[in-house]
Amino acid sequence: MNQDGIIQIQGGVTAAQGFKAFGVESGIKKAGVLDLALVYSETESTAAGVFTTNKVVAAPVMVSRKHLQNGRSRAVILNSGNANACLGEAGMKAAQSMAGKTAEALDIAMEDVLVASTGVIGAAFPIERVLAGIKPLVAGLSQEGGNTAARAIMTTDTVSKEYAVEFTLDGKAVRVGGMAKGSGMIQPNMATMLAVVTTDLDIPLGLLRRALAAATRVSFNRITVDGDTSTNDSLFALANGASGVKVDSIGLGFDKFQQALSMVCEELAKMCVKDGEGATKFITVCVEGASDEDAAERAARAVANSSLVKTAFFGEDANWGRILCAVGYSGIEFDPTTSSIFLGDLVVYKNGTGLIFNESQAAEILSEREIAVTIKVGKGPGSASVWTCDLSYDYVKINGSYRT
Amino acid sequence: MNQDGIIQIQGGVTAAQGFKAFGVESGIKKAGVLDLALVYSETESTAAGVFTTNKVVAAPVMVSRKHLQNGRSRAVILNSGNANACLGEAGMKAAQSMAGKTAEALDIAMEDVLVASTGVIGAAFPIERVLAGIKPLVAGLSQEGGNTAARAIMTTDTVSKEYAVEFTLDGKAVRVGGMAKGSGMIQPNMATMLAVVTTDLDIPLGLLRRALAAATRVSFNRITVDGDTSTNDSLFALANGASGVKVDSIGLGFDKFQQALSMVCEELAKMCVKDGEGATKFITVCVEGASDEDAAERAARAVANSSLVKTAFFGEDANWGRILCAVGYSGIEFDPTTSSIFLGDLVVYKNGTGLIFNESQAAEILSEREIAVTIKVGKGPGSASVWTCDLSYDYVKINGSYRT
Repeated sequence: MNQDGIIQIQGGVTAAQGFKAFGVESGIKKAGVLDLALVYSETESTAAGVFTTNKVVAAPVMVSRKHLQNGRSRAVILNSGNANACLGEAGMKAAQSMAGKTAEALDIAMEDVLVASTGVIGAAFPIERVLAGIKPLVAGLSQEGGNTAARAIMTTDTVSKEYAVEFTLDGKAVRVGGMAKGSGMIQPNMATMLAVVTTDLDIPLGLLRRALAAATRVSFNRITVDGDTSTNDSLFALANGASGVKVDSIGLGFDKFQQALSMVCEELAKMCVKDGEGATKFITVCVEGASDEDAAERAARAVANSSLVKTAFFGEDANWGRILCAVGYSGIEFDPTTSSIFLGDLVVYKNGTGLIFNESQAAEILSEREIAVTIKVGKGPGSASVWTCDLSYDYVKINGSYRT
Repeated sequence: MNQDGIIQIQGGVTAAQGFKAFGVESGIKKAGVLDLALVYSETESTAAGVFTTNKVVAAPVMVSRKHLQNGRSRAVILNSGNANACLGEAGMKAAQSMAGKTAEALDIAMEDVLVASTGVIGAAFPIERVLAGIKPLVAGLSQEGGNTAARAIMTTDTVSKEYAVEFTLDGKAVRVGGMAKGSGMIQPNMATMLAVVTTDLDIPLGLLRRALAAATRVSFNRITVDGDTSTNDSLFALANGASGVKVDSIGLGFDKFQQALSMVCEELAKMCVKDGEGATKFITVCVEGASDEDAAERAARAVANSSLVKTAFFGEDANWGRILCAVGYSGIEFDPTTSSIFLGDLVVYKNGTGLIFNESQAAEILSEREIAVTIKVGKGPGSASVWTCDLSYDYVKINGSYRT
C-alpha cells in the first residue's frame, strides 16, 4: 500500500467490477498462438482514448477515433500479428467490419466498439479469420479472461503486461486495472502502444479525459525503446461505474483516482520497456535542475534514445561522456561546467570534468538489471524521468527479420 | 570528368599545391598506431571552419573557433584516441599548448594553428606524449604525407578517407582535396567529424566561408550513422592561393570552385557513412515532392535515423512499412495516401497501400552493398538525400565496449 492507500491487487483489465475479457487464436499468427482479444463492459461506460501522433495512421485508429466521439464505449477488440496499416480502403473496411461483427455478436451499437491492431505494417489483413474468431471470443468472455486477452495482444513481447490497483472512496472499493503490449517501435507520443485501462468508478467524460491525459504524460509518454513512434499507438480508458462510487468534480476523490490511474499506466509503461526488444537492462534516466519539466524531459529523452548510450549500457561500460554529449545536443539550455552525472549513487562527472571514480564500483552498478542515471543540469525547478532499455545484439536480430 | 570539367585526382589533403602533411605515432593509442597529424600550408592561407552545434564542446573546438576569428591559418594539428572533451581547465590548457608547441616548431603565430581531437570523451589527455610528438611530426612534413595524416586521425574507422579534384580556371589548374574521419557519433549538425579540406585557389574569406557553408549543407550535414552529434565535430578549409588563380567575386569561377568543394565534401561524407561503425550497407534515402528542401531533409533524416529501418536493411528485409512510419513521425506535412516508396527501381508502396511486389527482385536489391530508397511524398518542389548505413551486430559490439 502506498501512502495514499492505493494497493496493488491481482489481475489486469478485468480487475475492476463489471468487466470481462478473453483471448483466442484466430489464425492471424501461427498455430497455437493467441492473436485476438476482447475487453467488454457489462454496462455502458464513459470512454476516452489517446492515439499516435504519427501522420501515418492505421485504419483501426481512424475507426476508434470516430467511435470515441460520443465519449461512450462498451467493448474493445484488439488483434496482434497484423497492424492493419497502409492498406488503403481494404484496411478501413476490415477495421469497420471488426467493429461491426463484434457489435452484432454482443448486441450493442457499432459505435460502442473500439478497435486496435498491432503487428507488421502493410501486410494484407486476414479479415475472414478475424471475423470467424469473434464468435468464440464473445462466447469465452469472463472476469477471469483478462490474462488471455493480455496474451493475445503480444507481438515480440516475451511476457504479458497487466497491472491493477484498488483504493477506497466513500467507504467503497474502487479498482483500476489494465493491460498493455510494447516491445519495439516504442516512443509513444501522446499515446502508446496498445493499452486498455478499465475502472469501475463512475466519472464524467471530461474528468476521465483529463485524468487519462495527465496519466499518459508521466507514463507512456516517458518511455522509449528505439525512438520510433508507431502508426498504431492506442490507449483506451473505460469507466463503467460498477463500484457504485461517483466522482464528478475536481477534489480529493478525483486526485485519488488520478493517482491510481497514473500508477497503473506507469507500471504498464515500465513493463513495456523492461520487455523492450532485446532488452537486458531497464534504465531510468532522470534529469534534474532544468529550467522546466519540458526541458528536463527533452534532455532525458535524448540520453534515453542515444544508440551510443544504450550500447554502452549493454556493454556495462561507464561511458558518461556519451551521456553528457546527448544532453548537449538535446537542445536545452544548460552549462556543462556546473553539471554533474551519477550512475546509481556514484558521481562520475562534476563541474565540467570527469572524476576519478572507483571502476569496480561502477562495474557493479552497471552489472545490475536496473540502473538509474541522474543528470543534474543546473538549479532550475524542472525534473523528469524517461525510462528506456539498452541496445543489444538481440534488438538487431529481432528487427533484422521481423517481417519474414 | 564530370560535365563541368571537374576531375578526380590522386591524393587528399595535400593534393593542392603548397600543402604538406604528416602523421606520427605519439603514444596516445597503442604501439604501432598513428595518432597525431599535421596539415601545413607553406604560405599564409585564408581559413574557415564549421563546428558541432552540441552545447557540450570539446576544448580544441573552443581554441580553433578563437584562432579562426582572423580568417587566416597556416596549420591544423589533429589527434585521435582522445577527444579532449569535458576535462575542464586541464583540457583547455592541453589544446592551447598543442597549438603553441606546433606554432613554435613551425615558427608561425599561435593564432595560425587550428586544433582538433577525436576519441573517448572525458579521459585524461596525455599532453606530454602529444607535445613530444610534434617535433617528429613537423620534421616529416611532405607533399606525400597526406595519407599518413589521414590514417592518424582514424578511430574506429577501418579505412582512411581522402579525396581530391582538379579543374581549370583561367587556363590554370586549381585543386581541392581533403581528408576526414567518421565512424560513430555521427549526425553532424552544421559541422562534421574531423575533416580538413585544402585548396590552392586564391579566394577571399567571405567567399570561402560562403562556399564552405553551402558545401557542408549538402554533404556532411546530410549524413548520419547513429543520430548522435559529437562534441568535437570540426571541418576546416584552407585556401593558400598557390595555384596563382584568383576568384574574388560571385560568378562562373566561384561556381566552379563551389562545385569542386561540394564534390570533395560529399565524397568524404559518403566515405564516413560507408565506413560507419559496423556498417554492411550504404543507404541513400531520397525524399522527393516535399514542400521545400528542409521538409524533404527532415523526412529523409527520420528514415535514415530509424533503428527499425536500419536493422531491416541489415536483415535485407523489404519492410517498407517502417520507412513510411518514420516519414509519418518526422513532423512534415504530407498525405500518405498519395505517396509512394521505391527500393531501387521497385515500387513497393503507392497511393496509400502496399503493392504486391516481386519478393525475389526485392531480395536482390536489398542484397546489394549500396541501396537507394526513394520516397515521393507529394508534388512539391523540395527534395533531399540523406546518406546512412545499416545497424548491425557489429555496431552494438563496437559500442558496447568502446571505452575499455
